[in-house]
Amino acid sequence: MQKVIFDTDPGVDDALALYYLHRHPDVELIGITTVFGNAPVALTARNALFLKEAWGIDAPVAAGAAGPVGAGGTEHWPVHIHGHDGLGNIGVPEPAGAPDPRPAHQLIIDLVRAHPGEVSLVAVARMTNLARALYEAPEIAGMVRQVILMGGAFAVPGNITPAAEANIFGDATAADAVFAAPWPVLAVGLDVTRQVEMTRAEIEELGAIGPDLALLRDLSLDYVGFYEALRHRGMVVHDCCACVALTDPALFRTRPARVRVLTEGIGIGMTVPAPEEMVFPPTDWDEVPVQAYAEGIDAGAVLQTIRRVITA
Amino acid sequence: MQKVIFDTDPGVDDALALYYLHRHPDVELIGITTVFGNAPVALTARNALFLKEAWGIDAPVAAGAAGPVGAGGTEHWPVHIHGHDGLGNIGVPEPAGAPDPRPAHQLIIDLVRAHPGEVSLVAVARMTNLARALYEAPEIAGMVRQVILMGGAFAVPGNITPAAEANIFGDATAADAVFAAPWPVLAVGLDVTRQVEMTRAEIEELGAIGPDLALLRDLSLDYVGFYEALRHRGMVVHDCCACVALTDPALFRTRPARVRVLTEGIGIGMTVPAPEEMVFPPTDWDEVPVQAYAEGIDAGAVLQTIRRVITA
Repeated sequence: MQKVIFDTDPGVDDALALYYLHRHPDVELIGITTVFGNAPVALTARNALFLKEAWGIDAPVAAGAAGPVGAGGTEHWPVHIHGHDGLGNIGVPEPAGAPDPRPAHQLIIDLVRAHPGEVSLVAVARMTNLARALYEAPEIAGMVRQVILMGGAFAVPGNITPAAEANIFGDATAADAVFAAPWPVLAVGLDVTRQVEMTRAEIEELGAIGPDLALLRDLSLDYVGFYEALRHRGMVVHDCCACVALTDPALFRTRPARVRVLTEGIGIGMTVPAPEEMVFPPTDWDEVPVQAYAEGIDAGAVLQTIRRVITA
Repeated sequence: MQKVIFDTDPGVDDALALYYLHRHPDVELIGITTVFGNAPVALTARNALFLKEAWGIDAPVAAGAAGPVGAGGTEHWPVHIHGHDGLGNIGVPEPAGAPDPRPAHQLIIDLVRAHPGEVSLVAVARMTNLARALYEAPEIAGMVRQVILMGGAFAVPGNITPAAEANIFGDATAADAVFAAPWPVLAVGLDVTRQVEMTRAEIEELGAIGPDLALLRDLSLDYVGFYEALRHRGMVVHDCCACVALTDPALFRTRPARVRVLTEGIGIGMTVPAPEEMVFPPTDWDEVPVQAYAEGIDAGAVLQTIRRVITA
């Protein structure tokens, strides 16, 4: 069993990722932390709590940062992608329960300290909560098993700008701190996630299986439409790719690299790797540890894995 | 016949590129302009003049910029790559003649105006002379047939930093202006040039053919050694790739994109493409024209072409 804290901004593909972690037999979801991103943090926390209750998830939900710790690109809430409620305009009902009273970064710190060496952080939103946890308790970096994040665009263009992927763009300073910390980071970015598309037909089929998946279908339909309009085959399940990288790392080809995030100018939010095998003159990359990013993926097997886990 | 102005900083691979243009039956070399880069401009101008005289080239040589027009990364002269004299430590003799009295950017302006619509600019060094020509006489952009430049790293890491290729890094502001101008630009960068390696054995073989190629061999040997030390098969002939892209464009696979160059921070000199077929929200790329960069190359055919032209 892998203990997992899921840092998220639900968000449609976040919901699929959450359900995947919840249903995976080898994952023990011990905390859900939310942050601004796909919607304001008040909405992402409410949405996480709603999904927790709808799906009977035990883990506590804690609300985190409402804005970036440092330089971050500015943008409008992506209501055209995730809906005005952050969950595909389904009209999310108010949850019955309340979130954990602690701020998200404190829940992360507490859970990591409670299980030293055991906790994996799967972070699929702005990296703000992780950066705050690092600022507050730098020693936790040495106590985290691994950080797997959905973010970055390493050898491909971004999505929010030609330079930057949205999760990194939204708090570039936080992301730079996450890559620089002495914990093992695997970044699962657009290089691979763009290849993993779930079609409308597949989602409809899943939705017929039972109430959990019917909810997943309902909140996904507008999101599928967004991708169809961009001539994708279906919805890109970015966030769930990071979860599959946790449970089935063999489906990914990764590359070791020191990674810096650009925090100024028109390139803000760009993830720039210095692959370990390459030789450069002395540069600003030299002081950060070697992390890894995904450069290849078996997209078909990832989709099968997701399907198998969420329908089991 | 294509009229060509060659903007260069000889530079070992510059010398091969110059000889290629000189010997190509379809190229009429009408001007050689030099700039700082592989060595200070006084040396690159002297080296160009020396090569012109050694090889009997008719085109005038004009010395250009000694430093960047704007933001550019700082660096030491790459004496470990191109030698203390910029030509592989052969001990370049003083040329007999003198350079054209005009500064390089003025020679570019004059030649383009003299042959409207006919001149191709092949620029394989810092883009400073081109930017100065644009600042001084913006209308020439509409009179240039095409600009082919050796520079940039589009889906691969740089060489002077993980973000930047050296020609662009050395005058990032100038390069951004070149990509933004209304002339057609094809950038031939590290994505493709790194694949084109000429081995020590091939260079020795060429050098036995005659005095022109013996000179080329002599000035190339240290440069080959630099690449061998980095475990390349041979020397990377970056600059000549841009010349082959002029004469044999079918050997390259190109991609249309708006290109911005980062001019600040640790990413300075990075070339960031917004491929034409991709959709982004409004960004800083929108105002620049669609140019092109090389993303694929038939490296074997490029090497054969170089060999055929310089031994004909």
